[in-house]
Amino acid sequence: MANTNTTNTNSTDTDDFNFFHDLSPPDSYETKKDKLNQFANTHVLLKNRIVLVTSGGTTVPLESRTVRFIDNFSIGTRGATSAEYFLKQGYAVIFLHRQRSLLPFYQRVEKNILDILIFSDEDENDIKVSRTHAKKLAPFLKDYQTFKDTGMLCMVEFTTLSDYLYLLRAACEAISVCGNKGMIYLAAAVSDFYIPKGLMLETNHEILIEKAKKALATYNHQMVIANLLDTRKKEVYIVTKETEERVQLTEEELAAGREIEQPIIDKLVAYHTDLLLS
Amino acid sequence: MANTNTTNTNSTDTDDFNFFHDLSPPDSYETKKDKLNQFANTHVLLKNRIVLVTSGGTTVPLESRTVRFIDNFSIGTRGATSAEYFLKQGYAVIFLHRQRSLLPFYQRVEKNILDILIFSDEDENDIKVSRTHAKKLAPFLKDYQTFKDTGMLCMVEFTTLSDYLYLLRAACEAISVCGNKGMIYLAAAVSDFYIPKGLMLETNHEILIEKAKKALATYNHQMVIANLLDTRKKEVYIVTKETEERVQLTEEELAAGREIEQPIIDKLVAYHTDLLLS
Repeated sequence: MANTNTTNTNSTDTDDFNFFHDLSPPDSYETKKDKLNQFANTHVLLKNRIVLVTSGGTTVPLESRTVRFIDNFSIGTRGATSAEYFLKQGYAVIFLHRQRSLLPFYQRVEKNILDILIFSDEDENDIKVSRTHAKKLAPFLKDYQTFKDTGMLCMVEFTTLSDYLYLLRAACEAISVCGNKGMIYLAAAVSDFYIPKGLMLETNHEILIEKAKKALATYNHQMVIANLLDTRKKEVYIVTKETEERVQLTEEELAAGREIEQPIIDKLVAYHTDLLLS
Repeated sequence: MANTNTTNTNSTDTDDFNFFHDLSPPDSYETKKDKLNQFANTHVLLKNRIVLVTSGGTTVPLESRTVRFIDNFSIGTRGATSAEYFLKQGYAVIFLHRQRSLLPFYQRVEKNILDILIFSDEDENDIKVSRTHAKKLAPFLKDYQTFKDTGMLCMVEFTTLSDYLYLLRAACEAISVCGNKGMIYLAAAVSDFYIPKGLMLETNHEILIEKAKKALATYNHQMVIANLLDTRKKEVYIVTKETEERVQLTEEELAAGREIEQPIIDKLVAYHTDLLLS
């Protein structure tokens, strides 16, 4: 994208736009930059080859408080698998990946991990991987532990296009110290457009209950559990045509690990019981 | 969405559109329908209450061979956690969820599962959950195994808006046999728009190499590894400014578990070595 802008001579307002001026750096940007620099500097001293592997899709938010976004599909198989083969070839690997995309070696674990775990007979806190799966998993776990213990793998996460571009720049700057011992392997599926900040939509606090009531009138169901994105884990409104009830957790309850779904389900079950008895 | 259409008296061509005519049913639709019906019928006989919980976001493809889509963000915490509490209240739960969103009880496992697994000293194929984590995980694993063994949890996956609407209809039809013992709890973040099939973009097989060459000319890097979405696991082209080389796995190699990333990385490492020696 940066290249397209700099080579474009027939520029418009949008083309002239400075991407990094419009969008803020990702969370923990300085920490991630330090981690990248430290990793590259270590491996320069060790005279290791180093590769930057990017993996997974990027998202472009349509709203500032992101509910909807345009996503480039990629589960990240190519990137995660390639990173494994680079490690086996002796490369130090920076794995710059989309959050929740596949990870090197992790990807070899059965998705349904709970289905392969078993309790030992003697001890409730002794949990094992079932024998059949352990055999399958063992070589990957061994590889993972080896590369982790020897500090050959550095994993850094992104989600949005903006995060990705900031961290890609930081990673490229970090490995520039490696000269021609460095390689850049871009396997991420990157969006080739973005929505300037000024054009993003906003979610609106005031209209939450109004929207819930309107939905009840339109669809004629019994209840809406309404929440705002930011406070969804500690406050919801249970809205019916006639009533609205706030369900809230205190900071103390949250700190103690209580989950708001518990009082929500308690109230729904009570409502359901009333309905069955009426 | 269906409701909006049926209540809209001021209809346009788009409003009149029959969604289910335009879009095909999801993969394994009949199998999933059978599973839903069988689950509902079993729990009617057992006189259990039943709840349909939907969870996770939906995607709306912008292209027929999906690379880009508009996504409604939801990792699925509300749905997965609510399903757990419904199970604890004795409900049979249909968990209709977005692929790769959080799952009941599964969500309690540390994301970095490989970091909590250890080899036993005596036996290479004996893999355990480390003691600290086993203690944390035990109650959730126990719950999961209980609800799985007693057949109280039925999990069905969707990805696109179209999959979701087909399966939502099927699940509602299935639990209709439960009368007022049934509850519908819609926690999924559903897209409120879609792109009619006729308007979708297409990826184009012919221009793959041309695009790769154009990228090399524009960005002045060394190499593009080009692939088509459908065949990305068995065929790629390594394209440089001067050359193009096809890397391919045979059906036999694929069946034997060979991965195309291995020859790709071998070739890149050889290229890198040449560069370092030159």
